[in-house]
Amino acid sequence: MTSLKRLQQNFARIATLNEAAAMLGWDAAAMMPPGGAQARGEQMAVLAGLSHELLTAPALAEDLAAATPPADPWAAQNLTLMREAHTRATALPRDLVEASSRASSACETIWRTARKASDFAAVRPALAEVFNLTRQSAQILGAALGLSPYDALMTQYQRGIHAADAAPIFAGYEIFLQKALPQAEEIQNRQSHETLPPGPYATEIQEALCKQLSAAAGLNFASARLDRSAHPFCGGTQTDIRITTRYDEADPLSAITGVLHETGHALYEQHLPTAWRRQPVGQAAGMATHESQSLIIEMQAVRADEFLAHLATVLAKAFNKPITAAALKRRLRHVSRSFIRVEADELTYPAHVLLRFRLEQALLSGDLAVADLPGAWNDGFHALLGITPPDDAHGCLQDIHWYDGAIGYFPSYTLGAMAAAQLFAAARKALPALGAHLAAGDLSPLTNWLAQHIHSQASRFGFNELLLAATGENLNPAAFEAHLASRYLTT
Amino acid sequence: MTSLKRLQQNFARIATLNEAAAMLGWDAAAMMPPGGAQARGEQMAVLAGLSHELLTAPALAEDLAAATPPADPWAAQNLTLMREAHTRATALPRDLVEASSRASSACETIWRTARKASDFAAVRPALAEVFNLTRQSAQILGAALGLSPYDALMTQYQRGIHAADAAPIFAGYEIFLQKALPQAEEIQNRQSHETLPPGPYATEIQEALCKQLSAAAGLNFASARLDRSAHPFCGGTQTDIRITTRYDEADPLSAITGVLHETGHALYEQHLPTAWRRQPVGQAAGMATHESQSLIIEMQAVRADEFLAHLATVLAKAFNKPITAAALKRRLRHVSRSFIRVEADELTYPAHVLLRFRLEQALLSGDLAVADLPGAWNDGFHALLGITPPDDAHGCLQDIHWYDGAIGYFPSYTLGAMAAAQLFAAARKALPALGAHLAAGDLSPLTNWLAQHIHSQASRFGFNELLLAATGENLNPAAFEAHLASRYLTT
Repeated sequence: MTSLKRLQQNFARIATLNEAAAMLGWDAAAMMPPGGAQARGEQMAVLAGLSHELLTAPALAEDLAAATPPADPWAAQNLTLMREAHTRATALPRDLVEASSRASSACETIWRTARKASDFAAVRPALAEVFNLTRQSAQILGAALGLSPYDALMTQYQRGIHAADAAPIFAGYEIFLQKALPQAEEIQNRQSHETLPPGPYATEIQEALCKQLSAAAGLNFASARLDRSAHPFCGGTQTDIRITTRYDEADPLSAITGVLHETGHALYEQHLPTAWRRQPVGQAAGMATHESQSLIIEMQAVRADEFLAHLATVLAKAFNKPITAAALKRRLRHVSRSFIRVEADELTYPAHVLLRFRLEQALLSGDLAVADLPGAWNDGFHALLGITPPDDAHGCLQDIHWYDGAIGYFPSYTLGAMAAAQLFAAARKALPALGAHLAAGDLSPLTNWLAQHIHSQASRFGFNELLLAATGENLNPAAFEAHLASRYLTT
Repeated sequence: MTSLKRLQQNFARIATLNEAAAMLGWDAAAMMPPGGAQARGEQMAVLAGLSHELLTAPALAEDLAAATPPADPWAAQNLTLMREAHTRATALPRDLVEASSRASSACETIWRTARKASDFAAVRPALAEVFNLTRQSAQILGAALGLSPYDALMTQYQRGIHAADAAPIFAGYEIFLQKALPQAEEIQNRQSHETLPPGPYATEIQEALCKQLSAAAGLNFASARLDRSAHPFCGGTQTDIRITTRYDEADPLSAITGVLHETGHALYEQHLPTAWRRQPVGQAAGMATHESQSLIIEMQAVRADEFLAHLATVLAKAFNKPITAAALKRRLRHVSRSFIRVEADELTYPAHVLLRFRLEQALLSGDLAVADLPGAWNDGFHALLGITPPDDAHGCLQDIHWYDGAIGYFPSYTLGAMAAAQLFAAARKALPALGAHLAAGDLSPLTNWLAQHIHSQASRFGFNELLLAATGENLNPAAFEAHLASRYLTT
């Protein structure tokens, strides 16, 4: 057996083990009784430990050293990604990995209490330790990968775009937003204030509708489930996708748009190429790309005028209530300055990300001390959105990221939103009847286009290369800004 | 670290990995969409392969060789069980293990079709290969463990009782049955023929009742779930038990008695000693012991006069139908000669097991050729129950056991039923108010007694030793026969 063949077998074994962990993660969120939590944590730790042992086995390192790059570009990229995964798994001293894991775990626990009490001081030492250890890891990883420390973190979530690419794009958006936000608010005040009829909206009807809309968007429920969990997500594996949501009987749109968002993630996974299943090159390209696939459904397609008209008809019939497109627009396309990222609208959301992107770089480099974070957050937030958080629970304590050791993840949200707009514009151009399809509630021409240009490409390319191949250019915020201008800045 | 300490860590790791597999097995039966089946099989294979690698690692063998038996009897028994598990995992040549696994898998697949068509000839060569390979394995395992080939198989399901112990007990039961069965039928014909009111019995009400009765029997649903699957079972792990059942709207008793049966299994797992969690000595003592715990609930307690009177009241109220204790007795304590083991009543069930116990020993030794199985089955069945199967689907093709490679498992069912009666008699003696508790629907005094005498003992003892400690004697069929005489042979 060639070293390459053996590598492919070993990486497939690791991926299969990780699939088992993914299913158990879904179960923990959607099914597990509380008494199972501790044992589940131990099961996950054993699976992660075995996965790490397989990836760092000396024989695997020898095969990586011996393998010669194949001519086939997919196979060559696969080898590149194997080497990168191996470097990431082996570059850090074991003591540092364990110290980081302990520090993140401890910090996250303290944060849960500190956030409730809005007590940043309580978690400050733990967060300082997380940044201290992450800084050391990022320096070592960066040196091993030929990247800056921050890029070494950022690229573990999304390859093919760096902080130096994102920074000017985000800065340009800041300028756009300063002008656009007051305009959008002014226009919005003059528009229809129509609201949805009061509830209750029965959970069973919501659930049936969510499943129907998800299936209509192309999700194959012979290889997927829809269940409930406290925090909606898309989990499972390529042939066994597990979407979750939560239902609010006062508001059906939260579950419906949530499920359509997760359906975007799910379709990406379902359409990955089977030929490279369980190989590094056969995985989704990264978190920003993944987010582009959920947001192109949730934000671009579903919130488009054409689809909202269709959705109003569907909802009115299902709930037997007078639900109009105007009410859906008011509810789903409403701009407001708010403190909490996860509740933000699509126009102001990038400001939340931009702030975190700048702060986490400054914290990582040491330019900003952890003790100065609350002040820097509040000043930065006011500069971006003109309002100041009333307390740290509405400021620097709101997100689990950082406190759980996830640094370099935040940019993915906005890179994904911008890519979604760019891809949607390209799809509109390639599919002249797209508007009519959306008006008929048919998302399949769009998702088929995505399957061809994004999903089936898996990890063949990094972020910008993938956009270049699909749309003719690297990430360009113009499409996103044009989308927002068209949706929020016209009367 | 001592070799014993290291062994305990390694066995805990293996057990944790096996817990992950148990959860995925539950998911496959209760949740998984059909598209996930192939990947799930691969995930299970990787987990089983890693578990086997950990158990057969050279370093573990060195620790086993180096460890000196500790003074503490639990720790000493734990080491004994570690060595036995290691011997079972390493005694067989890899080629033979793989050939057996392939042969069983192929045979099971052919059997599924052959059973539907009642075509024994179609599966005969595959079954002959299964017995051929199992014979080789049993000889090697028996030599390694100091057991006969059949006992080497039988003890992998239940330690502490051998074929030579079971054979005279089963033969005695045959004599008992020849006299008891016609008597029971004659008496039964003279008794009330009252039937349950016609359905439908709403699934939702059945499910709520099942959960209520299971909780009342002591199952802690903070560490358990009740779900649906095609074939009811009790899966999951000690702190996260997963019971399943299926509902028939024409007949609520199938789900209710089924869930109470699984609750017996579940309570055993929930009450295993936490001090020996994930160690071999901390596991349930075997399949016969496990079956005794489900049957003592389902057959001894729930079908007792006192509990049935309570159950009739509960059911009548829940379904708002005139359900009487007499109808429950007629439905749940009805004797009949039938061909299918899983549908048999408690009086005739041992005959089904006895036949299989004799035949599988003859097949394994080679005294009976696989080609002669259908004839031997039908002759044996007629000798035991006086009726002859109309075809092999109602005869030697009915059970998956044998065709999936499980040989030596069948005795567990009847050993369990007999042990259940023996334990119930001991509990009646120890708990004078047990009848009153059952009449009030309170199973907890019984299950607390079981927790103390059986569950908390885990694998400290083998089957007969455990019964000896709990009841004062080894397995003695007298209690079972007395129970049956009292229930079926009195007017």
